[in-house]
Amino acid sequence: MAVDLRDGVYIAATGVPLTLWWDGAVAAGGALRLVDQTRLPETYTILTCATLDAVVEAIRTLRVRGAPAIGVAAAYGLALGARAALAEPCPGAEDALATLATAAGVLRAARPTAVNLAWALERLLSRAEAHLRNGATVATLPQALLSEAHTIAAEDAAACRAMGALGAELIADGDVLLTHCNAGSLATAGMGTALAPIFTAHQQGKRLRVYVDETRPVLQGARLTAWELARAGVPHTLITDNMAAHFMRCGGIRGVFVGADRITANGDVANKIGTYGLAVLARAHEIPLYVVAPRSTVDLALADGSAIPIEERSPDEVRRVGGALIAPAETPVANPAFDVTPSDLVTAIVTESGIARAPYGASLAALRGKLSMA
Amino acid sequence: MAVDLRDGVYIAATGVPLTLWWDGAVAAGGALRLVDQTRLPETYTILTCATLDAVVEAIRTLRVRGAPAIGVAAAYGLALGARAALAEPCPGAEDALATLATAAGVLRAARPTAVNLAWALERLLSRAEAHLRNGATVATLPQALLSEAHTIAAEDAAACRAMGALGAELIADGDVLLTHCNAGSLATAGMGTALAPIFTAHQQGKRLRVYVDETRPVLQGARLTAWELARAGVPHTLITDNMAAHFMRCGGIRGVFVGADRITANGDVANKIGTYGLAVLARAHEIPLYVVAPRSTVDLALADGSAIPIEERSPDEVRRVGGALIAPAETPVANPAFDVTPSDLVTAIVTESGIARAPYGASLAALRGKLSMA
Repeated sequence: MAVDLRDGVYIAATGVPLTLWWDGAVAAGGALRLVDQTRLPETYTILTCATLDAVVEAIRTLRVRGAPAIGVAAAYGLALGARAALAEPCPGAEDALATLATAAGVLRAARPTAVNLAWALERLLSRAEAHLRNGATVATLPQALLSEAHTIAAEDAAACRAMGALGAELIADGDVLLTHCNAGSLATAGMGTALAPIFTAHQQGKRLRVYVDETRPVLQGARLTAWELARAGVPHTLITDNMAAHFMRCGGIRGVFVGADRITANGDVANKIGTYGLAVLARAHEIPLYVVAPRSTVDLALADGSAIPIEERSPDEVRRVGGALIAPAETPVANPAFDVTPSDLVTAIVTESGIARAPYGASLAALRGKLSMA
Repeated sequence: MAVDLRDGVYIAATGVPLTLWWDGAVAAGGALRLVDQTRLPETYTILTCATLDAVVEAIRTLRVRGAPAIGVAAAYGLALGARAALAEPCPGAEDALATLATAAGVLRAARPTAVNLAWALERLLSRAEAHLRNGATVATLPQALLSEAHTIAAEDAAACRAMGALGAELIADGDVLLTHCNAGSLATAGMGTALAPIFTAHQQGKRLRVYVDETRPVLQGARLTAWELARAGVPHTLITDNMAAHFMRCGGIRGVFVGADRITANGDVANKIGTYGLAVLARAHEIPLYVVAPRSTVDLALADGSAIPIEERSPDEVRRVGGALIAPAETPVANPAFDVTPSDLVTAIVTESGIARAPYGASLAALRGKLSMA
């Protein structure tokens, strides 16, 4: 694959490009740049989003995906909206806040179920209120919001590094691992969640081999994770999802690393469809299952996984691959986007502040507490 | 899907068309007709194979697939070869047998690993020798071979019906079932193996719902099984392979039905990749796993599954879907065509002569014995 990455921004530790970053040298006063994930792995294209609308479009069409990455993109989107709407002559403080709230609503509607997106927007709106309450001018608000977006991006990158360092301790030299979906650079503003320990262990000189589930229906494993591991030089083997059990039995797999969409107070984990099956198979083969996710994924308001609604996506994601029909056009389809893994199948949950283990109730509350203190 | 099936031959019990049959009304003296499976589900095309070469081509390019169906196609192919090569003026008996042996070699090379293909050809060659040894003329040999091919096809169809009747007793009214790959009409000369109990239970008026694994990489479940179940009016839901565990937990699945490529003396089962994972998951969810296969699938010469070589197929089957690349072009891939399920995960093996259960050693030997007696 001839991909010209000269234009990208690399994570030095992995050689994998960032999926998004702020570029001060483009457009007037800078813009968000991001890798168009809908075109990977065939084409590596960097988009320039210089307006709120461009960011909304990128989020809506999945050019940027992965909960942490969407949150960061939304933060930059709101900063771009502020730059355009609050230019001279500046509106009054109240009008400025109303304008920002409207822009945030447009961004939120781009992926209504994305929790990190709403969280990042709330954070910027709070920052704007505090900024004006403290007597700063509306004219300086766009720069303050851009600064907050930079902070969110930097925090996410730091959390990825911390999860990588902690998770790498769970990996031994010579290990054969399995991962599912994409929880790497392309899903975050840093080196990823579930892939961070793998990248870090590789950098530490540990010899690894990683089985990569292709992850039907959207194929994030085949399209994105295989691409990232190739960029980072981590030896890997792509398999179809239904081969995982065979290679747990015959391929020497020693650990399974996955991300998470949401983790409940008792340690139940909602993640990409297929994760629960891997957890059952891993237990049957006495292989540890590690969930790697930032503390912000832990939702202490939910007691257990039964409270998590399961998103049902379009049947055509299953009936079609790359536009081509693979089943009769009217075939009834089930397409749950994720499943729930009960905490008793989870060996450990790696966060940026520490590793939680059973009993998860106390362990997660303690780690999540560090966030409210921060 | 607008499919014109007027030209096909139906199995009355299911409404599913046969995948191959002899048609005396086409070509000079009849020809083998078969559904081009490479074009399903988008297009229902019936090919006419009036020559040995046409049959070889159809087998080689997977227009006909499924072990029993390939065996029947090869038998008709050899009969067609005999018709052309042994026409007036007839060769002598020895030359005729040499000609047939050459033709059988060409057919065997079309799918060198297909056991049923070799078995069917051996049976026709034995019939030819016996025919001439008994003083019959070379001129009558083509008709004798065609008759033997008809017998093989009829026996296969009868075995499917018997497996259907026996297996249907394992299915209760209201059951939700899961099947993998395609073990239906399109894989046999009758109503199938693993799908036969499902078709039969449906005909008996039992209300069923069947989850259909799409079965990556070749997607036989999505392309073929969903099509067959739709034709037969059996309610079904297509899922990606990695959803099976989720629906075992949340979808009320009460039984898993699969076919087999080979069954060893101790009851270990080689079948399409993914079967082993389903077996582990079924056990974890206390769901019975039923293997449905004709006695000829039982290979008493192999003590257990460790002796079965696992065929590794082209990496492009995984890297591509319908021609489109779904991963970086150079991604390392594993593509084992099947896996081995240890007999302790198999609830029962349904054959045309009876249902084998653990301990399988004695149970299978008794059933297999009925074949040698026959």
